[in-house]
Amino acid sequence: MKKIHVAMCVVAAMGISAVASDALVEKAKKAGLKPIPESKTELYKLIDNAKNPITDEKIELGKKLYFDPRLSKSGLISCNTCHNLATGGVDGVDAATGHKWTANPHHLNSPTVYNAVFMEKQFWDGRSPDLEDQAQGPIQAAPEMAATKEHVVSVVNSIPDYVKAFKHAYNDPKFKPGFKDVADVIAIFERTLVTPSRYDEYLNGCDKALSKEEKEGLKIFIDKGCTACHTGVGLGGSMQPFPAVGKYKYANVGDFKGDKNGMVKTPTLRNILETRPYFHNGAVWNIEEAIKIMGETQLGVKISDREAKKIKAFFGALTGKKPYVRYPMLPASTDKTPNPNLK
Amino acid sequence: MKKIHVAMCVVAAMGISAVASDALVEKAKKAGLKPIPESKTELYKLIDNAKNPITDEKIELGKKLYFDPRLSKSGLISCNTCHNLATGGVDGVDAATGHKWTANPHHLNSPTVYNAVFMEKQFWDGRSPDLEDQAQGPIQAAPEMAATKEHVVSVVNSIPDYVKAFKHAYNDPKFKPGFKDVADVIAIFERTLVTPSRYDEYLNGCDKALSKEEKEGLKIFIDKGCTACHTGVGLGGSMQPFPAVGKYKYANVGDFKGDKNGMVKTPTLRNILETRPYFHNGAVWNIEEAIKIMGETQLGVKISDREAKKIKAFFGALTGKKPYVRYPMLPASTDKTPNPNLK
Repeated sequence: MKKIHVAMCVVAAMGISAVASDALVEKAKKAGLKPIPESKTELYKLIDNAKNPITDEKIELGKKLYFDPRLSKSGLISCNTCHNLATGGVDGVDAATGHKWTANPHHLNSPTVYNAVFMEKQFWDGRSPDLEDQAQGPIQAAPEMAATKEHVVSVVNSIPDYVKAFKHAYNDPKFKPGFKDVADVIAIFERTLVTPSRYDEYLNGCDKALSKEEKEGLKIFIDKGCTACHTGVGLGGSMQPFPAVGKYKYANVGDFKGDKNGMVKTPTLRNILETRPYFHNGAVWNIEEAIKIMGETQLGVKISDREAKKIKAFFGALTGKKPYVRYPMLPASTDKTPNPNLK
Repeated sequence: MKKIHVAMCVVAAMGISAVASDALVEKAKKAGLKPIPESKTELYKLIDNAKNPITDEKIELGKKLYFDPRLSKSGLISCNTCHNLATGGVDGVDAATGHKWTANPHHLNSPTVYNAVFMEKQFWDGRSPDLEDQAQGPIQAAPEMAATKEHVVSVVNSIPDYVKAFKHAYNDPKFKPGFKDVADVIAIFERTLVTPSRYDEYLNGCDKALSKEEKEGLKIFIDKGCTACHTGVGLGGSMQPFPAVGKYKYANVGDFKGDKNGMVKTPTLRNILETRPYFHNGAVWNIEEAIKIMGETQLGVKISDREAKKIKAFFGALTGKKPYVRYPMLPASTDKTPNPNLK
């Protein structure tokens, strides 16, 4: 786990008292905002999977599979295609686009994989309880990776280095990786994709981690009521009515209705300045416009241009340090590896 | 350039004489086979671009642009999509497939980017003299990245960190990156993608770098005449008639006719066990079958199953060490960055 960055206040590291002096930290905590813990032990409590504990071997294997396009039917699409770690964990297009250049039928936007571990549910309709379950979806979805379980199992078992890596990771010389095992190690890798930011340093007690304007933005963010949904460690992740108030101007983009109760998952605001376009249907490209729309349709309040600008400044402090990722060199296919099928 | 691996014979490193004892090395050299030099100075003489010298700053910037899908019209396709550094520098499908899921109209297979710097010409019809020129092609090709020059220039100049990196790389505070500059730094990165292998150690004097079977394979490879085309440092890269003898069974795949003289670029054999399917049209998936077809259609000789197996063993020694690539975290888009267009 040495690869996860842990935020550290320079002042605190020097042994000088760096306790945030103003009442804003208290206000933020009262509003439910929580930092990514500085302590690795505390962080583990949040991100680990009791049923399948994180180990370095599983992270490394999961990373390879996350980047491996051979898991898809076409051989061209990997998890990283839509959740690109180079670009904020997203693809930067409005509707996720996969196999045969097919857009998501509900015009849904790919959510970022960074900090997805902090979300209470996965998918925009929250149908998945955790990353292990979520990872099984896009691999099999026809407009995404379009693979069958059998294809995935066949690919992985045709490549001796993958089989060996599973045996090693699970310390079982007879281990034969199945579809769920593939999703499990991909999820383990994803669990480590957390990005501590200056905002976390601030909540962890480093007053000077945020600028004056960023603090003003945070205060407005809380005062307007944004923390009703964008709260917790993830600054999002719970199911909420959408739109909660009034009309959503972009309702005609796609036909997504949320879950059976019309609830939609609140996206994280971490790294939000890197993950445009915005909303579940990717309809809005400008963050200030998005902020103002949210005020209107979720809170029934007006957010002025000046206020939106300050909230945007605060969002800048949510851009976190990304884990160090060595691009994996994947084990070669063999004559047993199924050929890609682009049809 | 510290990131390029340089092969080193363990025995030689220990100061013990490790000169290859048999006559095979001499035979190989007479056949025109040349190793990737051990000395970085010698390597530079082969890979550097006199007009645009390699520097660490250009490599790093070129790497980012190589991985940046925003250069494409759709925002979904980067150089790395078809020349994936994780999978031998190729995409693993028969015909390159890009924008709107369009296959290459001539059914041409993506050649590996690894060691492409050693090719005399670029593209299967050799129409491009070097990587700087080549890199401009796929970015603009309608079935590949489908971008205009203006799109690329607009994307790069809309992202302040890119502009800053160009200014820094070219030590010119007024530098304004144009389309050719983008291709140039991508090419600089590609120039560093060389993969020294055990075969190079062997030719560089380390007798025990190859096994007995691999040496037998190398001998058969030379004796059959394969080195007529697969020679030099690149084990390929020159223009040759195809097929040179008889008929090519897979001629009906695509309509590629080579250059105006019917010549086709000989692909490199480095990392060949990682870059299936084979031939310019990706028609053959099994390496032993490919070896036998080449004997028949290029040399007019029969290569037995046993011989093909040994040549395959020799090819295993051509799998090289890949450069260490830290996956880049790309600078965020801004409101000035053109939106992707998937149409």
